[in-house]
Amino acid sequence: MAQILLGEPVAAAIDEKMALRRIALKNKGITPTLAIVRVGDRGDDISYERSVMNHCEGVGVEVRQVLLPAGTTEDALVQEIKNLNTDASIHGVLLFRPLPEEIDDDRVRNALSPEKDVDGITDSSLIGVFTGSGVGFPPCTPQACIEIMDHYSIDLRGKKAVVVGRSLVVGRPAAMMLLSRNATATICHTKTVDMPAVCREAEILIISAGHASMIGKEYLSVGQVVIDVGINVNEDGSLSGDVNFEEADSIVDAITPVPGGVGTVTASVLIKHVLEAAEKRAETKCGPAI
Amino acid sequence: MAQILLGEPVAAAIDEKMALRRIALKNKGITPTLAIVRVGDRGDDISYERSVMNHCEGVGVEVRQVLLPAGTTEDALVQEIKNLNTDASIHGVLLFRPLPEEIDDDRVRNALSPEKDVDGITDSSLIGVFTGSGVGFPPCTPQACIEIMDHYSIDLRGKKAVVVGRSLVVGRPAAMMLLSRNATATICHTKTVDMPAVCREAEILIISAGHASMIGKEYLSVGQVVIDVGINVNEDGSLSGDVNFEEADSIVDAITPVPGGVGTVTASVLIKHVLEAAEKRAETKCGPAI
Repeated sequence: MAQILLGEPVAAAIDEKMALRRIALKNKGITPTLAIVRVGDRGDDISYERSVMNHCEGVGVEVRQVLLPAGTTEDALVQEIKNLNTDASIHGVLLFRPLPEEIDDDRVRNALSPEKDVDGITDSSLIGVFTGSGVGFPPCTPQACIEIMDHYSIDLRGKKAVVVGRSLVVGRPAAMMLLSRNATATICHTKTVDMPAVCREAEILIISAGHASMIGKEYLSVGQVVIDVGINVNEDGSLSGDVNFEEADSIVDAITPVPGGVGTVTASVLIKHVLEAAEKRAETKCGPAI
Repeated sequence: MAQILLGEPVAAAIDEKMALRRIALKNKGITPTLAIVRVGDRGDDISYERSVMNHCEGVGVEVRQVLLPAGTTEDALVQEIKNLNTDASIHGVLLFRPLPEEIDDDRVRNALSPEKDVDGITDSSLIGVFTGSGVGFPPCTPQACIEIMDHYSIDLRGKKAVVVGRSLVVGRPAAMMLLSRNATATICHTKTVDMPAVCREAEILIISAGHASMIGKEYLSVGQVVIDVGINVNEDGSLSGDVNFEEADSIVDAITPVPGGVGTVTASVLIKHVLEAAEKRAETKCGPAI
């Protein structure tokens, strides 16, 4: 039986620290505020939005919802983002993606001010991840993977880490963040030949494949830590990850469950970024404490 | 005996194509021009500068040398770059790095206009490499590695590619370029545990370790293609790569020599970028041909 790396204690530990930082901000008269921009009514967006709003309430971060109809034009969406950029009461912006097909994702995401880009979607944030400069905020999902491993004292230094998936939201930034932690990072994808063999060699396995239970025992080996980023809705409405949990449970050392794993931590990471954005702004305004 | 992947035929093939594109530009009254900015008198800078100038002369690209004394201030260097940004007669800028220690590399490299950044040093160019968007120019050295493999019809799709070194000049962009070609990319570095074992698993091995002959037979296996980016000056003044050539020669399928390998192709890639920059500017000015 593998150790189950539950997300809830990780999220709780982050939230607790954030509540203290929230008080420090309150004492300076600052109310950290997140704007959520949603186009249309996609089910996963609404479900993540609810989770974010619950977390924000718990920590004392305000939320402003900017809800736009499904037919919103690209120009109108860019204008909403520009308004949020110049709105001093907003510290961070969460934009739900993927956007409707007719909207240019690159133009919209890069319209956001880097200092409010708390989910690491702009090129400016991604370059911080790629160069390891630490400037800007990394995307919340790969950071949640790292937070989980940190919380459970899983050392990444020198480890063979394999990431399945090469998206800009999870796979590529995850690999770069592993590299910054001195892991040896490999990125697999749909064109990888004999992916099971590549995955079996990993000590740390981060899976963002987008296919329910795709990763079965042939991909796994004894001693591995498996972080399952996938969230797939089954026919009966239940959720499952990209990893066949039962098969993994009997082989690997540790695994995140779905639900209850990475997804549980992402909202807390987002809120952490909102507070950091508010703190940075306060510093810039008042000058750093001497 | 391994196949020796000589750089010279690769460079010649690029130069030949570029000479044709140079003529097309000449017919439009455009003289593609590269500015070389050098601070101080480092030996490798001068030697690469000479190679670039020879290639430029061969293809018909003009060079303007901006030679600054070793004690040049950061502000003065940034000002020189800004002058080149606004100088319409300049299409590309090559800035020799590393810069003197007292100069902020990030500030200087990002002062360069992305459209003149023919050696892919700005964040703006690097984000194109990281996202695979194809926007901007990639750094010339990792692109030279890819050009060599393309020239010798080495298919990258699905291959296990291992890059040794995680610099922003070679290692990280090389891994991302391999990924864009659908290889499975791994990045190794000084903290990698049992690097020889990781390297032996590779089908494509790109080495940018910075240590003469560090990669011996324990890192190599039958069937590999080895691209040696290292250029090290031996005590007797001769050059050698990061790979122990004699040991590699008897094991692997194909290897680039040092000298005569990657370094031979880099200047041609740079000139290709200068011509592309001039072509893009011509398009923007006159509109694309209909």
